[in-house]
Amino acid sequence: MIYLPGSESGVIDYSVYVITDSKLSRGRGHLEVVEKALAGGATCIQLREKELSSRELFNLARELLRVTAPKRVPLIVNDRLDVALAAGADGVHLGQDDLPPMAARRIIPPEMILGVSVDNAGQAVEAQRLGASYLGAGAVFGTGTKLDAGEPIGLEALASICRSVNIPVVGIGGIDAQNAGEVIKAGAAGAAVISAVVAAEDIAAAAAELKREVQKELLAR
Amino acid sequence: MIYLPGSESGVIDYSVYVITDSKLSRGRGHLEVVEKALAGGATCIQLREKELSSRELFNLARELLRVTAPKRVPLIVNDRLDVALAAGADGVHLGQDDLPPMAARRIIPPEMILGVSVDNAGQAVEAQRLGASYLGAGAVFGTGTKLDAGEPIGLEALASICRSVNIPVVGIGGIDAQNAGEVIKAGAAGAAVISAVVAAEDIAAAAAELKREVQKELLAR
Repeated sequence: MIYLPGSESGVIDYSVYVITDSKLSRGRGHLEVVEKALAGGATCIQLREKELSSRELFNLARELLRVTAPKRVPLIVNDRLDVALAAGADGVHLGQDDLPPMAARRIIPPEMILGVSVDNAGQAVEAQRLGASYLGAGAVFGTGTKLDAGEPIGLEALASICRSVNIPVVGIGGIDAQNAGEVIKAGAAGAAVISAVVAAEDIAAAAAELKREVQKELLAR
Repeated sequence: MIYLPGSESGVIDYSVYVITDSKLSRGRGHLEVVEKALAGGATCIQLREKELSSRELFNLARELLRVTAPKRVPLIVNDRLDVALAAGADGVHLGQDDLPPMAARRIIPPEMILGVSVDNAGQAVEAQRLGASYLGAGAVFGTGTKLDAGEPIGLEALASICRSVNIPVVGIGGIDAQNAGEVIKAGAAGAAVISAVVAAEDIAAAAAELKREVQKELLAR
């Protein structure tokens, strides 16, 4: 667990939220992807990797923490709460196929970030009640990658989710620099991307471009 | 977490330790396998399942606990410490590809059973030092199932492991009713089996036969 500036007041910067997934990174390793995403200004990193053993994922998380922690960027592990805890990651993100948030919250230290995937306002309210730190809402747009999961919910539903809770909501699914501004306008605290950054030829430039668009709208609020 | 008789004094009965793995159970579900193994007298159950989502494994563990807990038989989850914790299982077993025991021990409640796989006395001493509750030592014999892992270490090495620690050691790998007695003679507190019980046509009878051989040697000590 790194020291997160402002984390005592719950202020974590989810605005440029990059999910690293080896299936989409065109052969580049997680470490390279994360270093470049950080260089481009990613404010939050999620490690998503279903193919590794627990030991390998643990070692990978430790390796990524050595580059995220000095930049005060939180590292969130997808699904594997045990790996997140053991590696000292900053948080865990739970999707619909992962541990139920209620069961997870009981074993997560209170200072650990708990992200939960939702696709409607009812789920959002419930996840907040169960102690989620932030929500991943989507898929906002249609996406070629199954990894973003589910039918697109659209910007209206995203806005409804954002209005229903007072924890940060991150839009996910089919988001890129072109449409990220709309996601922020809908009330999201950030844009979560996989392909738009991880599959880009120039990862750092793609992250920086996304950041520009997100910040433009955040500052316009 | 169930109440384990004698668990306060560390006395858990590992003598007939059945590992349920869907790959070897000839199409029978985990619940059926476990119910029959319990009927045959299994004293400890390990749930090993690599193919399910976290949510599915969690639900399965909860389901198995409903049959193990009333019999005061501990349910130990292989690898997935988070699932074990969230489901309220009695313990977790960590192999060489799983979380490092040292990292795991930090996040496991002290009353939870922590099993660690070892194949020599040096590892055994280290695992005991790191807080293992019991050791799985093997593969004792050659085995057709890769799930038992590793080259056979033989009865001499098993005996050496048993002498090196004062926590219970369970032999694993290629054990059946025919050779289980030798495993106990070597100093093991129990015999862990997969195929010998889980793949048997009559699971309860196979567990009962194993138990007879194990108890014969335990009583002869």
